[in-house]
Amino acid sequence: MDYLALANAGVEKLHPYQPGKPVEELERELGISNSVKLASNENPMGLGPKAKAAIEQALPELARYPDANGFALKSALAAKLGVNTDQLILGNGSNELIDLVYHTFVSSGQQVVFSQYTFIVYAMATQAHGAKAVEVPAKDFGHDLDAMAAAITEQTKLVCITNPNNPTGTFLTRAELEAFLAKVPEQVLVVLDEAYTEYVDEDERHPSIDWLAQYPNLIVSRTFSKAYGLAGLRVGYMVANPELIGVLNRVREPFNCNSLALAAAEAALGDEAYLSEAVDLNRREMARYEAFFQQQGLRYVPSRGNFITLDLQRDAAPVFEALLREGVIVRPIAGYGLPTCLRISIGLEQENQRCMDALAKVLG
Amino acid sequence: MDYLALANAGVEKLHPYQPGKPVEELERELGISNSVKLASNENPMGLGPKAKAAIEQALPELARYPDANGFALKSALAAKLGVNTDQLILGNGSNELIDLVYHTFVSSGQQVVFSQYTFIVYAMATQAHGAKAVEVPAKDFGHDLDAMAAAITEQTKLVCITNPNNPTGTFLTRAELEAFLAKVPEQVLVVLDEAYTEYVDEDERHPSIDWLAQYPNLIVSRTFSKAYGLAGLRVGYMVANPELIGVLNRVREPFNCNSLALAAAEAALGDEAYLSEAVDLNRREMARYEAFFQQQGLRYVPSRGNFITLDLQRDAAPVFEALLREGVIVRPIAGYGLPTCLRISIGLEQENQRCMDALAKVLG
Repeated sequence: MDYLALANAGVEKLHPYQPGKPVEELERELGISNSVKLASNENPMGLGPKAKAAIEQALPELARYPDANGFALKSALAAKLGVNTDQLILGNGSNELIDLVYHTFVSSGQQVVFSQYTFIVYAMATQAHGAKAVEVPAKDFGHDLDAMAAAITEQTKLVCITNPNNPTGTFLTRAELEAFLAKVPEQVLVVLDEAYTEYVDEDERHPSIDWLAQYPNLIVSRTFSKAYGLAGLRVGYMVANPELIGVLNRVREPFNCNSLALAAAEAALGDEAYLSEAVDLNRREMARYEAFFQQQGLRYVPSRGNFITLDLQRDAAPVFEALLREGVIVRPIAGYGLPTCLRISIGLEQENQRCMDALAKVLG
Repeated sequence: MDYLALANAGVEKLHPYQPGKPVEELERELGISNSVKLASNENPMGLGPKAKAAIEQALPELARYPDANGFALKSALAAKLGVNTDQLILGNGSNELIDLVYHTFVSSGQQVVFSQYTFIVYAMATQAHGAKAVEVPAKDFGHDLDAMAAAITEQTKLVCITNPNNPTGTFLTRAELEAFLAKVPEQVLVVLDEAYTEYVDEDERHPSIDWLAQYPNLIVSRTFSKAYGLAGLRVGYMVANPELIGVLNRVREPFNCNSLALAAAEAALGDEAYLSEAVDLNRREMARYEAFFQQQGLRYVPSRGNFITLDLQRDAAPVFEALLREGVIVRPIAGYGLPTCLRISIGLEQENQRCMDALAKVLG
C-alpha cells in the first residue's frame, strides 16, 4: 500500500530529523567508553538542584493530568519578563511551538523565509506543510537581513530568525533587527527564536519583548532546553500579542507540557545561581576554545551561543570520525550546508580539554 | 490586527479544549477543601512504585535531550505486544499522535467519520485541519458501525473509533469490529483508539494488533495515561504497518516524548502488580456503582472503561453543581451532546463512597 500517495502535500519530500546518536550507541559501535558528548548544545552541568527538588515534589500527583493552562509557570514567566500571562504560550520544547505556528498559520503554496545555515526545523516544517521555503543566502555565516526583507513577497506568510543563530552562533545587532522589523509587512509573521539568549551578556541582549508592543506580527520564542538545563524535559515558550496567542491556543493540544516539565521549568526559572554558573562557565570555556583555535591557526565563527563552529576549510567528516575514535563526540553540520564545519558544544572544563587535546592530536 | 483572518482554514471555528478545572481552583472558588476529583478518568492509585524509581534514576541525565527514537520503551512494547519496533510510534499522549495522523494525512476539504458521543479530540482535529466532520448518530450511546460504514464516501480520509468509548464506556464486539474493518476501503485510514483497553477483561479484549496484518489501513492507539497511571507524563503509542509508521515519523517532532516519560512508561509496562491492582480496583468499584445506581433507580450506561456515565434524564448541570458543593467533582458532558448525563471516574473506595453519599443526598 502506498501510504505516501495518501499523505498531505509536502510529506513525500520530508525526511525525519537525524538527531545525534545516543552516547551508549556510539560507544558500543566504536568499542570505546568514557566518551564526552559535545554535540547537542546541552547544558553540561546537568539538572539544577531547584528543578530536581520540584520534580521530586511533583511525583505524587503524576497520575493526574497536567494543568492544561500551565498557570504556575506562566505566572512565573510573566513576572520575570514583565508581560501578562495571556501573552505566553507553553510548548513541548520550542520545536512544538514552531510547528504550532505552522499548523495555525502556514498552508500549502505559501512561502516561508529563513536564512541559509539556520535551525533545520524551519525547513522541515515548511516542507511538512507543503509551503515553499525561501532560503536566503547567509552573510558571514549569519542572517543577511536586508536580503531576507527583499525576499518577502505577497505569498510570504512567515519569516523565521534565530538569534544567536544555530548552528553558527552569529548574532544580529539591535539596529539590524529593528530596521528589519520595520520593513516587514504587518500580515507577515516573524518568529524570533532566542533559544540561546541567556548566554548573551545581559547588557547586549535585545529588548525583543518590548518590540511586541510595536510589532503585532512578532513572536519571540525561548526555551528551557539550553541555559536552564532542561533539554530532557521539553519546555519552550513563546511571547506575543495576546490575540495572536489566543489563536495559537485554539490549535494547541491541551496537555502538551507534562507535569514534571512544568514544575521543573518553574523552579529552574527561580534558580538564579544555577543559571549564572552556567553562563559563567560558558563564557570562560568559550574564551578557552577561542584561544586554542587561534593558537592552532584554526578558523572559527565567533559565537554567542553555548557552542562554537569550527571551519576546517576541508571535508570535516574524517576529522569528526577521528575525534569519535578519541571518544569526543561533536556535531558534523553537513546537513546544514556546512560540510567543512564541525559544531562543538561547550562542555565542562575537563570535557573541553579532552576535545582540544583530541583536536590537536587529530589535526596535528 | 485580525489574526484569525491570517489563520488556516478551520481555525476560526475552533475553540480551545476545556479541561476540567484544577482541584485547587475549584476549592478556592467554592470555599471547600478535601474534595474528591472523579472527573478526568485518571488512575486513582497515583504513580506506581516502579515508575517512580525509574524517574528518580533518570534525573541525572535530564539536561540531555531525550532519546529521539524511544529505543528502550519501543523495545519493551514490541516484546509485550508481539510486534516489531518499526510498527510503533510514541507520542506526547495519544492526543499528539491523533493530531499527527491528521497533520500527515488529512487536509482541507476531506472528510473524517466518527461517532456522536465520542472523544472530542477527533472533532477538534477535524476542524483544525479544515476537514469536514461526518458525525454519525450513536446507537445506545455507542458507535453505530453499520451507519459509520455507510457514511464513508470518496472524500473520506479517516475513520476514528474509540473502544471502549469515552465518555460513554460502550464496547463494540469483535464481530462488529471485524465486519466493519472488512467494509472499509483500503485507502481510508482507521484509528482504533483503545485508551481504556487494559480495563477490559483479558478474555474479552479484541486481538486488534493481529488485525494489522490483514488491514494495512488500521492504526491501533493506546496510552499510558489511564490504567498505567501516567496521565501527568503524557505517553501514548500507536501500532500499525511499518510503512505507515515510517510516514508518520517523517512528520513527528524528534523529541516529542520527554526523558522521564520514556523512563516511567517503560517501568510501568513492567509493573504487572500495579496494573492488576488498578484493574481489580476498577472492577470492584464499578460493580459497587452499578449496585448503587440500581438501588437508587438511576439510569446508567454499562461501561468497560474506568468511568461510568449516569443519565439523569433531566438537565444534569444543577446536579453537577450540587455535587461540587459536597466536594465531589465529576464531569458534565453537555459538551459531548449529553446534557442530561454526568461522567464519573472510578476512584478509590472511599472516594467513590463520598460520591455515592453525595449523589444520594443531592438527588434524594
